[in-house]
Amino acid sequence: MGRKIVVIGSGAAGMTAASAARETDNEAQVTLFTEEEHIAYSPCAIPFVLEGKIKDFPSIVMHDPDFYKKNRNILVRTETPVTSIDGDSKTLSLFDGEIVKYDSLILATGGKVFVPPIEGTNLPGVFPVRTISDGISIKEAMKDAKCAVVAGAGVIGLEMAIALKRAGLDVTVIEMFSQVIPRICDQDIAEMVKVYCESLGIRFILGTPIGSLCGENKISHVMAGDEKILCDMVIMATGVRANLDLPNSLGLDISPLGAVRVSATLQPYKRGRLVPSIYLAGDVISCESAAVPGPTMSQLGSTAVRQGRVAGINAAGGYATFPPVLSPWISQIGDMQIAGTGISSGLAAYYGLDVVSGHASGSTRARYYPGGKSLMVKLIADRETHRIIGAQMAGGEDLNGRINWISAAILKDVTAEEFVTSFENAYCPPTSMVKDVVNIAAEDLVKRWKN
Amino acid sequence: MGRKIVVIGSGAAGMTAASAARETDNEAQVTLFTEEEHIAYSPCAIPFVLEGKIKDFPSIVMHDPDFYKKNRNILVRTETPVTSIDGDSKTLSLFDGEIVKYDSLILATGGKVFVPPIEGTNLPGVFPVRTISDGISIKEAMKDAKCAVVAGAGVIGLEMAIALKRAGLDVTVIEMFSQVIPRICDQDIAEMVKVYCESLGIRFILGTPIGSLCGENKISHVMAGDEKILCDMVIMATGVRANLDLPNSLGLDISPLGAVRVSATLQPYKRGRLVPSIYLAGDVISCESAAVPGPTMSQLGSTAVRQGRVAGINAAGGYATFPPVLSPWISQIGDMQIAGTGISSGLAAYYGLDVVSGHASGSTRARYYPGGKSLMVKLIADRETHRIIGAQMAGGEDLNGRINWISAAILKDVTAEEFVTSFENAYCPPTSMVKDVVNIAAEDLVKRWKN
Repeated sequence: MGRKIVVIGSGAAGMTAASAARETDNEAQVTLFTEEEHIAYSPCAIPFVLEGKIKDFPSIVMHDPDFYKKNRNILVRTETPVTSIDGDSKTLSLFDGEIVKYDSLILATGGKVFVPPIEGTNLPGVFPVRTISDGISIKEAMKDAKCAVVAGAGVIGLEMAIALKRAGLDVTVIEMFSQVIPRICDQDIAEMVKVYCESLGIRFILGTPIGSLCGENKISHVMAGDEKILCDMVIMATGVRANLDLPNSLGLDISPLGAVRVSATLQPYKRGRLVPSIYLAGDVISCESAAVPGPTMSQLGSTAVRQGRVAGINAAGGYATFPPVLSPWISQIGDMQIAGTGISSGLAAYYGLDVVSGHASGSTRARYYPGGKSLMVKLIADRETHRIIGAQMAGGEDLNGRINWISAAILKDVTAEEFVTSFENAYCPPTSMVKDVVNIAAEDLVKRWKN
Repeated sequence: MGRKIVVIGSGAAGMTAASAARETDNEAQVTLFTEEEHIAYSPCAIPFVLEGKIKDFPSIVMHDPDFYKKNRNILVRTETPVTSIDGDSKTLSLFDGEIVKYDSLILATGGKVFVPPIEGTNLPGVFPVRTISDGISIKEAMKDAKCAVVAGAGVIGLEMAIALKRAGLDVTVIEMFSQVIPRICDQDIAEMVKVYCESLGIRFILGTPIGSLCGENKISHVMAGDEKILCDMVIMATGVRANLDLPNSLGLDISPLGAVRVSATLQPYKRGRLVPSIYLAGDVISCESAAVPGPTMSQLGSTAVRQGRVAGINAAGGYATFPPVLSPWISQIGDMQIAGTGISSGLAAYYGLDVVSGHASGSTRARYYPGGKSLMVKLIADRETHRIIGAQMAGGEDLNGRINWISAAILKDVTAEEFVTSFENAYCPPTSMVKDVVNIAAEDLVKRWKN
């Protein structure tokens, strides 16, 4: 009998961890428990199904439990909540009382939508956007709804606002901060996104926390400050917090950001001492930032996959470490792409960093090549060291590779001057300008120290 | 009276050098001489005008001499060949006998098409693809032509083959090497490109040097080995060599690659000693490779711009250096994009490097997101050090940022393992897979040492 590896959670982190464990130890028994019905899908895809860009929910599910059984010899038990874990006896209890033994345990229990402590959040017609089940409920509700409120103007809130607007609903987005995408995006780039959304007819109430959710048997209106907004449905896109139920039951140390603190091998601590045989991955943990010293919440599917790999390898007796992250992110808001990496100016100020920023706008193709789309790039550098520590961009196409490119520069401690001198751009008229907009933004950045 | 800065050449290197000189020294007299009629355009755009993607030739010209006079106080003298330079008296002679004095001279005389020493290259109907004038002549010839031969299956040869094919001509491409894009692309990626071109009806004769060009008063056929190919026109896409007429007249040292050898400040040498007051940029020089030690020919518009900036700053009394290059390149061949960076496996073998390579194919979007295009990525690493030293890719969209991303990794000496561990990908379903194809290729690469 091989090593017993148990994974809890069927998101990107859990599924990847199970596969990595199998790849590392061909003899192990790998079992995955999840309370969800559907596994192996990207929650990031849900708004795009609702927008009608992706055909339906079944198409976003990559594999079913049968696939994992047959192709990877991984037993996936869906709709099977784990209720408690006993770290001393290395056992866990399922909802039905069954006791399961493990040699290595991977906790990938993810996050849950943060619901602000206000009235009415349990009313019918109020939805989180986290699982396919949520998505199916929202799709059903959209059929009869005429107006919707989105609580929270982060990336998921905006994607949902677009989906609802394109389905013909009146949409109002309510955000506590005075700009959209407040946590990771600067005011100037955020304003471009807001103006674009407004051009589609989406209404924003910024700088105003959502008040109460009201209605008799179903949501009928929302209060934002003194304003009453009638609505048939509310989307709670108010952020995600680590799901700490099981970690807390184990007494694991929690980082200042409210997620499980882990070592580079993704092992937890208990009163400062490393806990053996347990590994964590995904939204349940905080990790180290590669842009500034200290912990950060990544909360990205791409990060979950990379952490799942490390947790899976280590749980199976291999060795891998998870390095500090920049958490590059991207979103498609209607016809606009927005992306960012490292830290925003706002976050830099929070950390007491004095920054300078360079901007450029241009086209994704040579100016005379038809079909090029406009692109705005902002680079943020530390004023003292000139090191690039963040970037954001907004435009019509091809942002993904560009934001990864800048992430590579940040990761390798590149200064504004080194970017200008050494970072080359591949060029042909159909695919970029001879100097890419990113290069021009770097040139603008360097000038900021001269003036 | 300010410093007299003279630039020779109106390509990307020359125009950028003139502008950078002006920006560095506001008091200088900046004069640019060119034998061309048109200035400030990208020769890379010519095939796309002929393909009908770009409206016409005037639209690829960014600025005219009047713009430079009025906006940058730069005097541009077109159709004014410089016939000789006297480095001792710091003067140059124009074609009409006029003598011009300079304090600093920037040579950006570019390259010329290498015409193989075969019969018939002067026949009417045989065209290089270097200037707008060439482009206009080709466009005129295409009106009556039914079949064309393209000599050389490099990037420009293939772009021209597509343009001619889409205009309805029968097209045969003749290439001395046994694959397309032989200098910078590996056989496997090159084969994908060839198969795509063949699917459009383009015919290839590989492994066969072009023989003689034949005809009475005009080209009528080409010999390739024993085969006679009837044609109404021939495109000479047989490569570019540095234009050494003026450098040779000055006795400047030539690098083993047949271009002017320069310092990091882009100054030339004469019998091993640095020559003051002269700077060079663009296709006329060789530079250092950042992938392997030694000289390399970059021959890219994007490189010319970056060198022009350095030459212009230095010629105007500033200080800048030009670092080693990876020369990332990209092309749009019909509906296929191909790109590369660093060195190919073939070139690595030439340098005596033992390499391993990793491959991955996937989509430019989540697999279930409509409109995604297939993408093949190849990463090449040094077997001994595991350092990534090259990459190539072929696919339908969004290659530009991806190849710049890998270039950043190569530039910063990143190993295959570090790429897997630390290089993050921004993800959302409309713009990439949760693991980008580049990340998957890196994972494949790492496995090559295990097997």
